[in-house]
Amino acid sequence: MRRILAIDAGGTSTRAVVVDVTGRCHGYGAAGAGNPVSAGIEAAITALTSAARQAMAGGSGTESISATLVAMAGGGAETARQQLREGISTLGVPGPITLEGDLLAMYHSGTAEPRGYVLVAGTGSVAARIERGRLVQVADGTGWLLGDAGSGYWIGHQVARAVVAALDGRGAPTDLTDLLLGSLSLDAAAAGVDGRPRVLSDLLETLYGLRPIELARFAPLAFHAREDPVAESILSGAADALGATLATVRRAPLARPVVVGGSVAVSLLTAASPASSSFRAALGDQRIPVRDGLVGAAVLGLRQADVMVDDEVFARIKSTLKEPGQAVPVAAAGTWGHDEGAR
Amino acid sequence: MRRILAIDAGGTSTRAVVVDVTGRCHGYGAAGAGNPVSAGIEAAITALTSAARQAMAGGSGTESISATLVAMAGGGAETARQQLREGISTLGVPGPITLEGDLLAMYHSGTAEPRGYVLVAGTGSVAARIERGRLVQVADGTGWLLGDAGSGYWIGHQVARAVVAALDGRGAPTDLTDLLLGSLSLDAAAAGVDGRPRVLSDLLETLYGLRPIELARFAPLAFHAREDPVAESILSGAADALGATLATVRRAPLARPVVVGGSVAVSLLTAASPASSSFRAALGDQRIPVRDGLVGAAVLGLRQADVMVDDEVFARIKSTLKEPGQAVPVAAAGTWGHDEGAR
Repeated sequence: MRRILAIDAGGTSTRAVVVDVTGRCHGYGAAGAGNPVSAGIEAAITALTSAARQAMAGGSGTESISATLVAMAGGGAETARQQLREGISTLGVPGPITLEGDLLAMYHSGTAEPRGYVLVAGTGSVAARIERGRLVQVADGTGWLLGDAGSGYWIGHQVARAVVAALDGRGAPTDLTDLLLGSLSLDAAAAGVDGRPRVLSDLLETLYGLRPIELARFAPLAFHAREDPVAESILSGAADALGATLATVRRAPLARPVVVGGSVAVSLLTAASPASSSFRAALGDQRIPVRDGLVGAAVLGLRQADVMVDDEVFARIKSTLKEPGQAVPVAAAGTWGHDEGAR
Repeated sequence: MRRILAIDAGGTSTRAVVVDVTGRCHGYGAAGAGNPVSAGIEAAITALTSAARQAMAGGSGTESISATLVAMAGGGAETARQQLREGISTLGVPGPITLEGDLLAMYHSGTAEPRGYVLVAGTGSVAARIERGRLVQVADGTGWLLGDAGSGYWIGHQVARAVVAALDGRGAPTDLTDLLLGSLSLDAAAAGVDGRPRVLSDLLETLYGLRPIELARFAPLAFHAREDPVAESILSGAADALGATLATVRRAPLARPVVVGGSVAVSLLTAASPASSSFRAALGDQRIPVRDGLVGAAVLGLRQADVMVDDEVFARIKSTLKEPGQAVPVAAAGTWGHDEGAR
């Protein structure tokens, strides 16, 4: 029975699965960052081939596989894509190698429906409408500086700005201050100089020493300080922004699946806060949280091989996909990738 | 009669004046960017010495001068300050060389009062309370990424984000779109690809090609599009933020001078818009717009030389300081410096 190799290459980790035409999974593999833009082309190829070899070690020789599909953040340079194809071809897997966008794979991880929506908020944020199984409209995903409203970067940036303003006397005092200073091992007690607290200078020096995108790592602090009005206001702003991004691509009828991915979106979905309530309301009852794009990569790989992926095949992929730690992760410091770092 | 040399070294230009102990000015000079952090130490020394030589060419030999004061953006590394002193000492002017902060000089350009406030908004934004002629509290000035609320960077960033959101369908249509695309020579008419307008990709590529601080150059577009609700909302946000920064350092009694400097603050003061009305109200009736810190550098230089600068001496500095183009400039594209660029 024909099998395909599907790879979901992400900014922090890469996953691979071998699946047959009935949707049954025959092997799983995982490796590190697989995005050629943020991780570098050599590291990305190493991650992809490592995850693929693990997946094929589960009894699938390369000869049983007839095609490969790789899902990854789109828009990469054609040179990088060509290098990636060449790297993957060293695996010796017969058949074509197809590259697809990570957003489309994320959508197909949630549903076999050809029409619906996907909203992803991790370090960045983006939403899309899918018709006939393809992206027809995209909103946001415009990067840390100019968009990605409600994303992990956006929240982390707001956290940092709120703490700077609080130390400065411009903003309300907030529990985020101790959380942020603690996470950076800065001492709040140092005496002031030149009309402002010493710790503010120390904080500015530390934060300006980071690449801006790294502010995303402070987003979890807003979830940890949930009783704090400043943190709650930041999360509400994020929920509103993500709701607006989804609304931009949404069309009547509303009763279509809304696939939700990325640590921030999933954390917002599951948190017990006013921001989360309004986020759930904005998304509606058809929301489907997903962990990553691996199931979708398998769906896209099978369709590419002319296999009809109906609800039964889709359900079989999901039920037979054996990977460690299936639970959707709640936001925790340092778990969010930096796909947008290359901007 | 003893004379001092005062230099106001800024991010886009440098000015120098020779002034005697009665406050009478005897020569003026101007040169390019004089901030050692953003312009580089060699260029800064060249600008400072060039402006100083022009000022002394007006009849003041170096032997008539007993001290030098340089006002510049503070917080520079001690090494740079030492190099700057050595560079200035090549002028052969006798007496001490004193470095002071640009914020204090800006304040003293507006008033001889020892107590009051200063609010500066150019590329960055900062406010301070002055008592006994010295800074006692500072608010904001925390840089483009983490603060500088209401500054030229802040406005330009909001302009860019608003246009990206409008092209994306997330934000309201705005006149800023044509203004921004026009200023970058981008063609709005190109066909869309991948579910979004082509010009959005072009715009993102162009803007991410800039250093973030360069977004400040789009701030004037918000002033040019003043009938536009999106632009007005950005300016209102800036006015509110600047008002809040000033309020942070303000103490009763309110009837103390508020010196206002920087292109953005002065443009907001003089514009005919709701944002400007609320900005003027927030600042109060004691507001004093100033063009730069040169008068204040002279005040600080005279005080450093133990000259009592009373209202009469102060008025004489202002009335005898002959420099071209005395008018406070209205915001125009490309006129704002990048003092904060080094962050």
